[in-house]
Amino acid sequence: MNIPQTSFPRVVIIGGGFAGLAAARGLEDQDLQVVLIDKHNYHTFQPLLYQVATGGLEPDSIAFPLRKRFNDVENFFFRLAEVTNINADENTIETSIGNLEYDELIIATGSTTNFFGNTNIEKFAMEMKSVPQALNIRSLVLENFEEALLETDLDKRRALMNFVIVGGGPTGVELAGALAEMKKGILPKDYPDLDIRQMKINLIQSSGELLKGMSNKASAKAEDFLIKLGVDVWKDLRVLDYDGETVTTNGHDHFKAETVIWAAGVKGDSITGLEQECLIERANRFKVDEYSKVIGYNNVYAIGDVACMETKKYSYGHPMMAQPAIQQGKLLGKNILAKLKGKKLKPFKYNDKGSMATIGRNKAVVDLPKWKFQGVFAWFVWMFVHLFSLIGFRNKVIVFMNWIYNYIRFDRETRLIIRPYKKKNNYSFKE
Amino acid sequence: MNIPQTSFPRVVIIGGGFAGLAAARGLEDQDLQVVLIDKHNYHTFQPLLYQVATGGLEPDSIAFPLRKRFNDVENFFFRLAEVTNINADENTIETSIGNLEYDELIIATGSTTNFFGNTNIEKFAMEMKSVPQALNIRSLVLENFEEALLETDLDKRRALMNFVIVGGGPTGVELAGALAEMKKGILPKDYPDLDIRQMKINLIQSSGELLKGMSNKASAKAEDFLIKLGVDVWKDLRVLDYDGETVTTNGHDHFKAETVIWAAGVKGDSITGLEQECLIERANRFKVDEYSKVIGYNNVYAIGDVACMETKKYSYGHPMMAQPAIQQGKLLGKNILAKLKGKKLKPFKYNDKGSMATIGRNKAVVDLPKWKFQGVFAWFVWMFVHLFSLIGFRNKVIVFMNWIYNYIRFDRETRLIIRPYKKKNNYSFKE
Repeated sequence: MNIPQTSFPRVVIIGGGFAGLAAARGLEDQDLQVVLIDKHNYHTFQPLLYQVATGGLEPDSIAFPLRKRFNDVENFFFRLAEVTNINADENTIETSIGNLEYDELIIATGSTTNFFGNTNIEKFAMEMKSVPQALNIRSLVLENFEEALLETDLDKRRALMNFVIVGGGPTGVELAGALAEMKKGILPKDYPDLDIRQMKINLIQSSGELLKGMSNKASAKAEDFLIKLGVDVWKDLRVLDYDGETVTTNGHDHFKAETVIWAAGVKGDSITGLEQECLIERANRFKVDEYSKVIGYNNVYAIGDVACMETKKYSYGHPMMAQPAIQQGKLLGKNILAKLKGKKLKPFKYNDKGSMATIGRNKAVVDLPKWKFQGVFAWFVWMFVHLFSLIGFRNKVIVFMNWIYNYIRFDRETRLIIRPYKKKNNYSFKE
Repeated sequence: MNIPQTSFPRVVIIGGGFAGLAAARGLEDQDLQVVLIDKHNYHTFQPLLYQVATGGLEPDSIAFPLRKRFNDVENFFFRLAEVTNINADENTIETSIGNLEYDELIIATGSTTNFFGNTNIEKFAMEMKSVPQALNIRSLVLENFEEALLETDLDKRRALMNFVIVGGGPTGVELAGALAEMKKGILPKDYPDLDIRQMKINLIQSSGELLKGMSNKASAKAEDFLIKLGVDVWKDLRVLDYDGETVTTNGHDHFKAETVIWAAGVKGDSITGLEQECLIERANRFKVDEYSKVIGYNNVYAIGDVACMETKKYSYGHPMMAQPAIQQGKLLGKNILAKLKGKKLKPFKYNDKGSMATIGRNKAVVDLPKWKFQGVFAWFVWMFVHLFSLIGFRNKVIVFMNWIYNYIRFDRETRLIIRPYKKKNNYSFKE
């Protein structure tokens, strides 16, 4: 790996997402060597992936080069690599570019799509956890319309214009809303020779309400917004299978659709090598104590989506979202410094600042701890918070410009098929 | 192809580049049916591809969705397809999505990289005529540095940091300058643990001067700028071969390099089916008369890079650049309307507005018909002209913002490996 041996303790952080970056920031300019490893050379601002997938933002504006983030930090090393295994007995990790010793190891690998073992769905459905995956969706949606234009078989044409989004969490809701706005504002103009009314956007949720983690009011209002935008919301319906043509469910309704986007579950993106007992099997998250330490280890930590800290209030761990990840990362940075200086550690306490989701133009829902509101103001709050949270000044400016443009012109201009998905890849290019 | 038969004459335009768009614009809202066919669903602003390849601009800001361009135009049809053959006897074309009849056919397919038959170079060298190709270069450059960091064999590390650009035209000069600026401002910060002085940028030109089409002053000054930026300029040197490891030349110098960018030639991207005599073999361009009509045909036209209109001043046809393409497209639109109305046609006369190239920050060369100048002012003129020529208001704003940011911060922030080139594709994913 070509990282110099020094007398400083080496902290290795796996993953440059919200959690990993927060931890790294806390360890800057200390008597430490910090090695950050990620399989991408950029940080992904996942909350805005759905806008990349629907032509509203360019991918480059929600990605930030990880090396740049630490340009002026001493004793900091970045390596582009995939970590394949942990040898905790020897304090080493195995990666695609060789092994590395650590003194302290922070696992911040985030989460990945959970297909719950259904290999058919895994093969044929789209997921949206990374920039390339969001770009695949963007390409596929547009490729479908180009194909629908040529299709003379009515059933096939309908299937090309039928979109099924599985999962009524924030990702599903935001994606359904964005597709509905494309249907309203852009597609009829782009495809005047196609009957866009035949386009259907189905949002399927297995339980009785959307946005399960949020307030009842937010859930109800989000559903209301979606229905007004023309989305078909299916509740209490469970998707059983998808063979590339038909989505089968546990109800009477089946869906012939060329595009299925699976947003029905995530699981920790864990790494092998630690004791089996550390891992919560179903969620694939590492059990950690209140100091983010993986149960049974002294110098291995997990933070963010891949960590499960069971508390009274969060008996299945904290929600797999940006806020807990950032807060855990921040505290862990401090605690590692405290540990190395022989000071007392601080236990983690989640400060729930609330949650929010946007459905479309002027339509969002916000749950703050003491105030829940929906509509235009919520939408502005949503935009402000997301703009503020984006990493990088350039990214902030570019996203802001795009949003102003899209708002004034009712447009989404990055509807470009730059890397065709369907034709070329035949379902095999799912990064 | 699912295009309605009407009583209007049908004009088919192949290619949505500068020439095709200019022709289409002239045919808007007439008693005509216009069908535009392109293999991409976007127009590419080729003059800025080198900035995409070097992390200065996001790809989406130099691409414009073709459908949007004609959103409000009646009787206009766009089809995403590749045209494979012309049957001029039957007035039809064959495409990847079926055949189509035409009344008037405009070939505006532009140009493609000319490897002059060297299949080795074609296989191993990079080209830069499309957005995906520019993104491949962006990925490869960054992947090479990530790899160089790990490489302990000094020769191999040098090869990873050795860049050979073949061809001293505008593309080669601009790319070499941009890479030199990366070397100066960005790479030493991003890779503090790598000796960036070992990075070499070689620009190889077979003749005795760079920017051959421009004035001697511009050529000399461009070379001067490049040398100041640390580029090794090799003149009167001809590249003979590249086997993926070593560039061999007709001189004493050979280059061990992992990255070779071939900018040494373009040729028309012609289509089969017309009489052999119409095609100029070496340049692969269609011979046209002063009305852009392909020699020997009455309703088949060629414009832009793929057309060769031999005139007294331009005995090998006009330069393969944006200006002649736009002017030919514009006039052809008018002439087709005149022809259909039985009016007199106007012969083409190229109005040479001059040419320009940028080498780097505050460094450009501009040749106007009556004034040639170089340096800071030329650089501002270059920027203004390119910003003004970009299609789309959003694109103009985003590019402008990026340029301001890059100028103030000495930065190029879109250095993202979003679609890895090297590892995954093993030279087989050259779009």
